[in-house]
Amino acid sequence: MIKARGLEGVVLTDTKITSISGTKLSYVGYDLDDLVNYATFEEVVFLLWYKRLPNQAELTEFKENLFEVMELPEEIYPHIEHMDLNKIHPMSALRSVISLLGAYDPEDSLTHKDATMEKALRLQARILTVITTLSRLRNGKEILHPKKEYGYAENFLYLLKGDPVDPIEARAFDQALILHADHELNASTFTARVCVATLSDLYSGITAAISALKGELHGGANEQVIKMLMEIGEVDRAIPYIQEKINNKEKIMGMGHRVYKKGDPRAKYLKKMSKELTRKAGQEKWYQISEIIEEYIKKEKGLPANVDFYSASTYHSMGIEHDLFTPIFAMSRTSGWIAHMLEQYDDNRLIRPRANYVGPKKLEFIPISKR
Amino acid sequence: MIKARGLEGVVLTDTKITSISGTKLSYVGYDLDDLVNYATFEEVVFLLWYKRLPNQAELTEFKENLFEVMELPEEIYPHIEHMDLNKIHPMSALRSVISLLGAYDPEDSLTHKDATMEKALRLQARILTVITTLSRLRNGKEILHPKKEYGYAENFLYLLKGDPVDPIEARAFDQALILHADHELNASTFTARVCVATLSDLYSGITAAISALKGELHGGANEQVIKMLMEIGEVDRAIPYIQEKINNKEKIMGMGHRVYKKGDPRAKYLKKMSKELTRKAGQEKWYQISEIIEEYIKKEKGLPANVDFYSASTYHSMGIEHDLFTPIFAMSRTSGWIAHMLEQYDDNRLIRPRANYVGPKKLEFIPISKR
Repeated sequence: MIKARGLEGVVLTDTKITSISGTKLSYVGYDLDDLVNYATFEEVVFLLWYKRLPNQAELTEFKENLFEVMELPEEIYPHIEHMDLNKIHPMSALRSVISLLGAYDPEDSLTHKDATMEKALRLQARILTVITTLSRLRNGKEILHPKKEYGYAENFLYLLKGDPVDPIEARAFDQALILHADHELNASTFTARVCVATLSDLYSGITAAISALKGELHGGANEQVIKMLMEIGEVDRAIPYIQEKINNKEKIMGMGHRVYKKGDPRAKYLKKMSKELTRKAGQEKWYQISEIIEEYIKKEKGLPANVDFYSASTYHSMGIEHDLFTPIFAMSRTSGWIAHMLEQYDDNRLIRPRANYVGPKKLEFIPISKR
Repeated sequence: MIKARGLEGVVLTDTKITSISGTKLSYVGYDLDDLVNYATFEEVVFLLWYKRLPNQAELTEFKENLFEVMELPEEIYPHIEHMDLNKIHPMSALRSVISLLGAYDPEDSLTHKDATMEKALRLQARILTVITTLSRLRNGKEILHPKKEYGYAENFLYLLKGDPVDPIEARAFDQALILHADHELNASTFTARVCVATLSDLYSGITAAISALKGELHGGANEQVIKMLMEIGEVDRAIPYIQEKINNKEKIMGMGHRVYKKGDPRAKYLKKMSKELTRKAGQEKWYQISEIIEEYIKKEKGLPANVDFYSASTYHSMGIEHDLFTPIFAMSRTSGWIAHMLEQYDDNRLIRPRANYVGPKKLEFIPISKR
């Protein structure tokens, strides 16, 4: 028996999905830099699921298949319409609606035997529409319908904000989705694998993963970052604000990473996007405040920015509501969650560690009348 | 780095909740035998959460507190009524409704900071009402209201089947709940702990745990057992049926256990209940078939019956629908899930193992036009 709090130093499994080595991240053998620069999100999803890049015909078919199941089934709307969406956090709503989509799925079953690629496509396609529908409805806007000529990122921005879709925004958003698509056995992916190692189904796995991503130490971090930027508000308030946090020993979100001690390879892309898009939106100060914080924390604590840090100002500058940041993370990571669950099913073993009992022992039971 | 598929041989954490030692199981230092024989489920829930047994006044207050929040909030009914409950599996419905209860909870938040004992009580009380409501509605029966004079087990049977509640059934059901209340870091409890180690909230943790329990290698097992008994149908068909399963190398559900190699300390109680209650219901053959299978598998494969095996015929003889067996397991285990999540929050560390990348490396990226 070895003791491993947080499971640091423990290798759960072999994987053919994602490799993290030093500050290098690759998906199925392809360097993240190449994928971000030259591929689209759909190519990356195909890569994660089928372990190779598609050719043009395969990619076209894959995109059509995603498009065809993007609309939500009719029976889901009454659930969404009944929710008080101005009160309910979108992550709680997303967790619930994904679970309901599973309950209504004609192939829902109790086991992994329903883990078909069709179901994977439905999940990846519809998590997009769930998020945009939640947002449109709570803002009193009509529901739009996906367009076949649009890619995944474009359809998200279209369904969220309507036409025209800005091509620079769409490309940046597509790149952000690629950057968040997978990250080996992070806490939500690990949750999904533990969940489906009981041979539970794909929807259960995604529901469990969303449940984990919701936590502020994981997906919730980018929402915490934008909250911090808003509280700071102006460039000259950045250092005093951060210094006070440090004095109070409060955690600064978006800084440091369990796996990357020397820097997160995804951060530089999001930093570049943040710079471009905040300028484009005439909101450069959010980038400037972010950069001041990044440099200060690096100097004071030795911690570099992680993937969450610049995604906050990037999404904000695209006019995306702050409480959708974590749902968007979930939408992107669904591709990796599915890849990992399929890998788990493929060579399954129940995941069950032990605990070391340190409580009282051999207590005498005293009947309640004598307590 | 150590490699541990399935995390066998890995100790995640110290715990003060449950101890498994050989074939001995104890909750917070009290032997399971004493608790099953002399305590009630509510005392055990109190014990798991507060780490001591209540006195009479504390138990009375605890039961009143559970009773007071047992009714479902009004806004949940339209969701349940909209579902086609004759099509949807109760575990998919339960996962969804628990998630919705979280979304609507006035204290819902993104973090563990809402992990109050009031919320724990609401979860424990309402998972009962969700299950009975799903059952009543799909059978076209009116919804009943919990009774203050009834304990937890009695209220479950009352809300499910109406009055009169049979005292022998109620006591057996209460004991079954005690037996299933906690079992250290089993797969669903571990899922809950991994989930909330991101500082996600209690509802997310229970939703994730239900997602894991749904799998046929975990909570789904008792439903598989009753399915097998029904397929066998008659006493003289038991051995040929099992022999064929063995010949086809199929797994016999309800037999063997990762942790208990020499026998599951919970099985003997369920066996006794199964014997009594099947006789009482004039359905002794389900007990007899079960016993024949148990002895045959022990002889042929050396595997003893586990907690799931005799719970199947026990619940069946009480007239409980088969697809409610796993939801009932969830209802009982909610007490343990909550205890473990509170322990996780109390001394938290993100749970994140690593994977060993064995896929292709340094692949050259070829643009899609040239693939």
